[in-house]
Amino acid sequence: MTPLAPGATIGVLGGGQLARMLALAGARLGLKTHVYSPVADDPAFDVCAAQTRADFLDEAALAAFADKVDVVTYEFENVPARTAEVLEAHCPVRPNPRVLALTQDRLIEKQFVRGLGLSTAEFADVRDAQTLAAAVEALGRPSILKTRRFGYDGKGQARIADNGDLALTFAGLGGAACILESYVPFIKEISVVAARSATGEFRAYDVCENVHEHHILATTMAPAAVSPATATAAVEAARRIAGAADYVGVIAVEMFVVRREETEELVINEIAPRVHNSGHWTLDGAETSQFEQHMRAVAGWPLGSTRRHGVSVRMRNLIGHDADHWLQLLAEDGACLHLYGKSETRDGRKMGHVTRIER
Amino acid sequence: MTPLAPGATIGVLGGGQLARMLALAGARLGLKTHVYSPVADDPAFDVCAAQTRADFLDEAALAAFADKVDVVTYEFENVPARTAEVLEAHCPVRPNPRVLALTQDRLIEKQFVRGLGLSTAEFADVRDAQTLAAAVEALGRPSILKTRRFGYDGKGQARIADNGDLALTFAGLGGAACILESYVPFIKEISVVAARSATGEFRAYDVCENVHEHHILATTMAPAAVSPATATAAVEAARRIAGAADYVGVIAVEMFVVRREETEELVINEIAPRVHNSGHWTLDGAETSQFEQHMRAVAGWPLGSTRRHGVSVRMRNLIGHDADHWLQLLAEDGACLHLYGKSETRDGRKMGHVTRIER
Repeated sequence: MTPLAPGATIGVLGGGQLARMLALAGARLGLKTHVYSPVADDPAFDVCAAQTRADFLDEAALAAFADKVDVVTYEFENVPARTAEVLEAHCPVRPNPRVLALTQDRLIEKQFVRGLGLSTAEFADVRDAQTLAAAVEALGRPSILKTRRFGYDGKGQARIADNGDLALTFAGLGGAACILESYVPFIKEISVVAARSATGEFRAYDVCENVHEHHILATTMAPAAVSPATATAAVEAARRIAGAADYVGVIAVEMFVVRREETEELVINEIAPRVHNSGHWTLDGAETSQFEQHMRAVAGWPLGSTRRHGVSVRMRNLIGHDADHWLQLLAEDGACLHLYGKSETRDGRKMGHVTRIER
Repeated sequence: MTPLAPGATIGVLGGGQLARMLALAGARLGLKTHVYSPVADDPAFDVCAAQTRADFLDEAALAAFADKVDVVTYEFENVPARTAEVLEAHCPVRPNPRVLALTQDRLIEKQFVRGLGLSTAEFADVRDAQTLAAAVEALGRPSILKTRRFGYDGKGQARIADNGDLALTFAGLGGAACILESYVPFIKEISVVAARSATGEFRAYDVCENVHEHHILATTMAPAAVSPATATAAVEAARRIAGAADYVGVIAVEMFVVRREETEELVINEIAPRVHNSGHWTLDGAETSQFEQHMRAVAGWPLGSTRRHGVSVRMRNLIGHDADHWLQLLAEDGACLHLYGKSETRDGRKMGHVTRIER
């Protein structure tokens, strides 16, 4: 694909805050965004040049959408395979939908990562209470049972503790196909947010360090306090993953840092084939935001500089009623406030974030 | 007016690049923008939550618009007085429309500025060829004849040179009411972009230095290379103007720097009651952009930090086919490209700008 010209239209599947920030970044560069989402009041509808409100399985709507845009991208990894297939018959889809198959299924994802010679937690395929019992026998306790598909923010997970009833735990996840993962005694969680262009150019932001609260990302700090060797290895792992998937766009790879005697080792936890919450700091804290970077990549454009501003950058999510303190945050010099324009504040819902740069 | 809450709707009169950048800045803060413009393919329509395509004198459309928004602002100073009057009957208009009367008429503007004890060029009211002749006699040649109303980017101006025919020159401007201004032998042009909040808080960006080409702004550099005393005086002049006009929002004051023996003196050239091209560098080069600052002010919010990033910032407009070099600019590390999404490239038309920060 030759580079799209300014004025081209990027179709985005999904209309949440990630789509919204993609649309805002694209607009800065003269790109139009067409948002496709089934959710009538999704926040990205407020900032896009065109919109389709339809189900992801509405094939007529998908075809009409794909005919009106120059390339399609997505803000979430759970795009149904059939949706991607219908779209691809009409226009390019970036990142390529093969990566969806990889990242929608924790088992296939772990096998892919292992196949690249990278570390993951130990894992076992779990289809029923019997295979779960065998898996727990092999991986030990504590360990974590996860549905293979559709998990996010701690949903679709259960901890296998010393005394839990395995059949009950399995049933608690709805009887879905699962994966058991060994417990990883990590010292910190980091992520690499990076981009790969249509010509194979790869650029990573500083490795960042993430703290979760109640299974939801609470803060990200860039750069991560890890050794230079660990930072290099983390970026190389992301580069290998993106290359192997022939990836185009922004990708995020979450990793655990594990201390083994004197050295740090990396365990790949999860791949997100999209812009990522742990890259929100780049909006204010890097020369090119992850959103602009993604739009550049899917438009077939060169990637922008990933240099960080300042000494360090800290991003804090505003979850639920955290966002009620907007006036106080507006009055704080140097606090960069982002609110997502969601019509309703709910506990556990990401309403915005605030970035602070230490200069 | 108490501060608007996030989710509120800001109405913007005009749909050009300034409205577009206001909408983008508002969206970051969870504000919705409703764009009102008679121009069907205006670039701000691509990024706003609601839109009205109607004439500025369509009173029914104005009333319906004003009833749907929480506050109205504008991206240009030539809003008809009647338009503002209709809107004000329905909702707050910020900055207050009295400032339009001031800035729409070069004669009234100069009288206002003089009334504050600030310097302007010498000037005289010109109604016909006879008053022009008397004015030229008084102010000398060269001098500049300008229409009192509707001038921008050098339009509505004529230079009175040594040998010009005065009656012809006056007729060349359409016989409109004019003002003759004495020639100011300036050493540079600067501007102060600043904001005043609903509570009277005032914050200015670094004074910046502007270079025009063919009567259109070509580059802005911040900070301006002027003495600290001149910079302070420039900001104080803007503060006095904003205060006297009970101004709310971003205001730009263009000034000439004149060398008188060993010192620099300031001559106020023009007041723009809106975000301004010479403030575009703040999008990438300051902690709060002028667009965010304006939205904060009109929403009744506290102003943000105006601190500059880096050692200096240079903004260059992309006029007409300058913007054809977009791919090259995208590939330049550290160049922050902005394209306005205009459907047609025309000579003399502002298509985008690029900002470079020296760190």
